[in-house]
Amino acid sequence: MTVVNALTAELGEAIVLAGDRIPEKSRSDQSLSGKHLPLAVIRPTTVQQVATALRICNAHGQAVVPQGGMTGLAGGANPRSGDVVISLDRLAGIEDIDAAAGTMTAFAGTVLEVAQKAAEEAGFLLPIDLGARGSCQIGGNLSTNAGGIRVITHGVTRDNVLGLEAVLADGTVISSLNRMQKNNTGYDLKQLFIGSEGTLGIITRAVLKLKPLPDGRATALCGLNRFEDVLALLHEARKGLSGLSAFELMWEAYFRFSREGEGLSFFEADYPFTVIIEQSGGSDEAFEAFLGEMFEKELISDALIAQSEKDRERFWKVREGATFDSLPRLINFDVSLPIGVLDQFATEVTASLEQEFPGIHVSVFGHVADSNIHLCASAGEIDEATEHRIDTVVYEHVRQYQGSISAEHGIGTLKRDYLPYSRSAEELDLMRRIKAALDPNGIMNPGKVLPVA
Amino acid sequence: MTVVNALTAELGEAIVLAGDRIPEKSRSDQSLSGKHLPLAVIRPTTVQQVATALRICNAHGQAVVPQGGMTGLAGGANPRSGDVVISLDRLAGIEDIDAAAGTMTAFAGTVLEVAQKAAEEAGFLLPIDLGARGSCQIGGNLSTNAGGIRVITHGVTRDNVLGLEAVLADGTVISSLNRMQKNNTGYDLKQLFIGSEGTLGIITRAVLKLKPLPDGRATALCGLNRFEDVLALLHEARKGLSGLSAFELMWEAYFRFSREGEGLSFFEADYPFTVIIEQSGGSDEAFEAFLGEMFEKELISDALIAQSEKDRERFWKVREGATFDSLPRLINFDVSLPIGVLDQFATEVTASLEQEFPGIHVSVFGHVADSNIHLCASAGEIDEATEHRIDTVVYEHVRQYQGSISAEHGIGTLKRDYLPYSRSAEELDLMRRIKAALDPNGIMNPGKVLPVA
Repeated sequence: MTVVNALTAELGEAIVLAGDRIPEKSRSDQSLSGKHLPLAVIRPTTVQQVATALRICNAHGQAVVPQGGMTGLAGGANPRSGDVVISLDRLAGIEDIDAAAGTMTAFAGTVLEVAQKAAEEAGFLLPIDLGARGSCQIGGNLSTNAGGIRVITHGVTRDNVLGLEAVLADGTVISSLNRMQKNNTGYDLKQLFIGSEGTLGIITRAVLKLKPLPDGRATALCGLNRFEDVLALLHEARKGLSGLSAFELMWEAYFRFSREGEGLSFFEADYPFTVIIEQSGGSDEAFEAFLGEMFEKELISDALIAQSEKDRERFWKVREGATFDSLPRLINFDVSLPIGVLDQFATEVTASLEQEFPGIHVSVFGHVADSNIHLCASAGEIDEATEHRIDTVVYEHVRQYQGSISAEHGIGTLKRDYLPYSRSAEELDLMRRIKAALDPNGIMNPGKVLPVA
Repeated sequence: MTVVNALTAELGEAIVLAGDRIPEKSRSDQSLSGKHLPLAVIRPTTVQQVATALRICNAHGQAVVPQGGMTGLAGGANPRSGDVVISLDRLAGIEDIDAAAGTMTAFAGTVLEVAQKAAEEAGFLLPIDLGARGSCQIGGNLSTNAGGIRVITHGVTRDNVLGLEAVLADGTVISSLNRMQKNNTGYDLKQLFIGSEGTLGIITRAVLKLKPLPDGRATALCGLNRFEDVLALLHEARKGLSGLSAFELMWEAYFRFSREGEGLSFFEADYPFTVIIEQSGGSDEAFEAFLGEMFEKELISDALIAQSEKDRERFWKVREGATFDSLPRLINFDVSLPIGVLDQFATEVTASLEQEFPGIHVSVFGHVADSNIHLCASAGEIDEATEHRIDTVVYEHVRQYQGSISAEHGIGTLKRDYLPYSRSAEELDLMRRIKAALDPNGIMNPGKVLPVA
C-alpha cells in the first residue's frame, strides 16, 4: 500500500488531500522560493490525527513538512515534490485562558491575531507580535522562535512559552503543558521544539504567558549625531522609562530614502541616526521629562513627540519602509551582532558592497536593543549568482564579528548553507545527534536547517 | 592503567586529588544527604583540562560528578563511592563585561556574588540572585536553572543566559558563546545544559544578561483577608507599579510562627494572608499612591510602608523564617502549581497532613507570582519511612493539580523517584533518548534526575 493510501485509509479523504485537491498555496511560504507541489496535504483536526499521520509516514520512511500560516521568509515550510505536508490550520482554537495564572493554552493552528484578541478580551496582552499576525499561526511562531516588535519588552517567542505539546516522528505525543513560571523537573523538553523549524517534531499545542494590558503610549522621533549617543540613550531609556516598548534605529540612508519615498519630512536636516523611542504604560509627563534630560545630557540633538495617533503613524511609516519594496530584487538581511559593533558592521559591510557592486543601494535599520539589524540591498536586476555573492559578502562580515546570520527569520533552506558562518562544526554535529535521537528515520522536514554533513 | 593513573599522568597531581588528598566537602551538598567520598577529585583550571578529564573518563567508562559551590538541596552534586568528581572552583573569573551589549562572560566556577559585584562596578545588575550567593557558582546556577528572589522581575536563570560553553561526555567542547538577544541559527543547544544538573555535559563558561542598576526601593507589608484579593493585588501591582521586584505571600500560620519566633509584631491581629510587596526603581510617591488605590478598592485591609532600611529588614526577617530551623526534622517542600489553585492546594495538603500526622507543624509561604510555594513540615523526631510518607502525601496533592514537585531546587537524587508525579512516561522516555544521544556511555552524573527505567 502506498503511503497516501495508508494515510487515506486511516484518516479519510476529508483529512488527506492528494492529486488535484492539493492547494497551490502549499507550494511556498512568503519567501516565494518554493517550487514544488507536495505528494499530499494532511489537514488534521485533532492531536491524535497528527500522531496517526506521523506514525504512518514514519513507518513508510515518508518525509513530512509541517505547515502553518506560510508567512516564513526562509523556505522552512516549503515541500520538495514527493514530500507530504501536514498543515496545522484546522487544529486551531483557544483551549483555555487562566486569568489567575496569566496563561493561554492554544492549538498550533490558531492565527496569532485571533489569540491576541482573545487575550485582550480577557484583559491581557499576548506578548508575541509580528507584522504577519493576521495570517501566521502560533505553531509557526513557536517553531521559528519568532521575533517581532515586542522583543525589547517581553523577549522572543521562546521567552513567552510555558508549556508545549509536540508529536515526535514516530507518533509519540509529548505533552508538557506546564502552566507554572518555575518548574525544574528534569529536562526542559519544550526548548527542543521551539526554533527547530519542524525538524524534530510537530508542535500541536502551547501554554503561552499573558501580561497585563498596558495603558497609554508615548512616542518620539529623535535625531542623534553619534552611535555612542544611541547606545547611551538606550541605556538611559532602559533605566529611566517605566515601560520602554520600542527603540528602533534608522541609519541616515534608510531614514532619508524611506522618508522621501513617503513624502514626509521631520527635521530641518537628516541626522546620522534617527531613533523611534516608545513607552507603554507610563505617563506622558515622565516621557517628556526623560527626553528633556536626554537633551540636557546632549545625547539627542532634536526630538519630536507624537501629539496624535496620526503623528505616531507618520513616524512608524518611515520605519516600516514600504517604499523599499519598489527596489528591484531587494534583499532584506536579518542579522544580529553584539550591540556595540552594530555601527562598525553597518559601515564596513556597506563599504564592501559599494566597492564590489558600484551603484548598489544599501540601507540599514535595526531593533538595536535586540542586537538585530536589517540591511536592505538592491543592485538592480541581478542574476542568482550575483545575489549569492551579495549574501556571501554580508555573511562574511557577520562571521568576522561572531554575529548571527539569522536573528529572527530562521534558517529554512535559504540560509542553510551559510549556517556554518554562525555555528561551529561541533555545534552542527551536536544538532545532528539530537536530530538522529528524535527522528532516527530523518522524516521530519528533511533538508531544512541542517547543512548536509 | 587505572583511570586515576591515566588522569594523573595527563593532568598532573596538582589537578588530580586522590586518596587522603580528597577533601571532605566533596562528599555532600547542603542537603547533607551525601554519604560517600569519591574516588578522586579533579580540579581543572582550563576548559581544555575539563575536556581532557572527560575524554579519559569516557574511555574508561568512569562515572563523573560535576561539583560547583555545593549549595544544592537535592543531592545533585553528591558522589557515589567510586565516582570521579570534577570540581569547577578553579575554573573561575570574569572574562569580559560588554557594556554596550549588556553582557558578562564568566567561567563556571565564578562565585555568584563575585559576578554580581563585578557587574555592579560596571554599573549593571546581574539579575541572577539567591540566598547562597556567597558560595554558589555560576556553573551550578545554570546547571540547576536556579530560581531565587529576582524571578518576578527578571525570570529564572535560563532567561538570563545568552550563550554557553559546555563539554560533552566524550570531551567535545561545545562553544555557543552567543552575545545577541536574538539568534535563530539552528537548535538552541544551550538549553540542553541549563537545568539538566550535569547529566548531559559540564558547563564551563556562560554569557549572562546584565540589566541597568535600579535606583531606590520601596517596601510594604500588607494584610489581606481573601486569596482572591491576593491575586487581584498581584495583577494590579504588575500593571500599576513600574518595577515590581517582590511579591511574597505568607499564609497565616507561617506569618504568626515566624513573627513570634523573631519577637516582632506588626498589625493588631494577624491576617489570613500577609504580602511583602516591593518596588525597585520607581518613586516613593507612586508606590504610596498605588497602595492607597488598593485600599480604596478594598483589596488590602492594612499596610505598613517601610520608613527605613531597618523596617524593611524586619519585614523580610519574618519572610526568611530563620525560626523554622529550630523545628525538628524540618522538611522544606519546593513545589509549583498554577497560581489560581495555590490556596486550595495549601489548605488541602495541610488538612491531609494534619489528619495523618496529628500535631504536625505545617506552614506555607510563596513566591506567588512565580507559581512557587514552599511548605514547611515538621512532625517531630520521625524516622525515614515517616518522612518518605510525608513526601508522598504532599506530592500526591501536587500531582492531582498537575503541579511541579520541584519549582527551583531541581531533582538530584532526593526527588528522583517522585519525578513521574510531574512528568509523563513519554517525557521521561524522551529525556532518556536525549541523555543517550549526548552521553552514550552514561558517565555524566549517573543516578541523578532520571529514575531507573
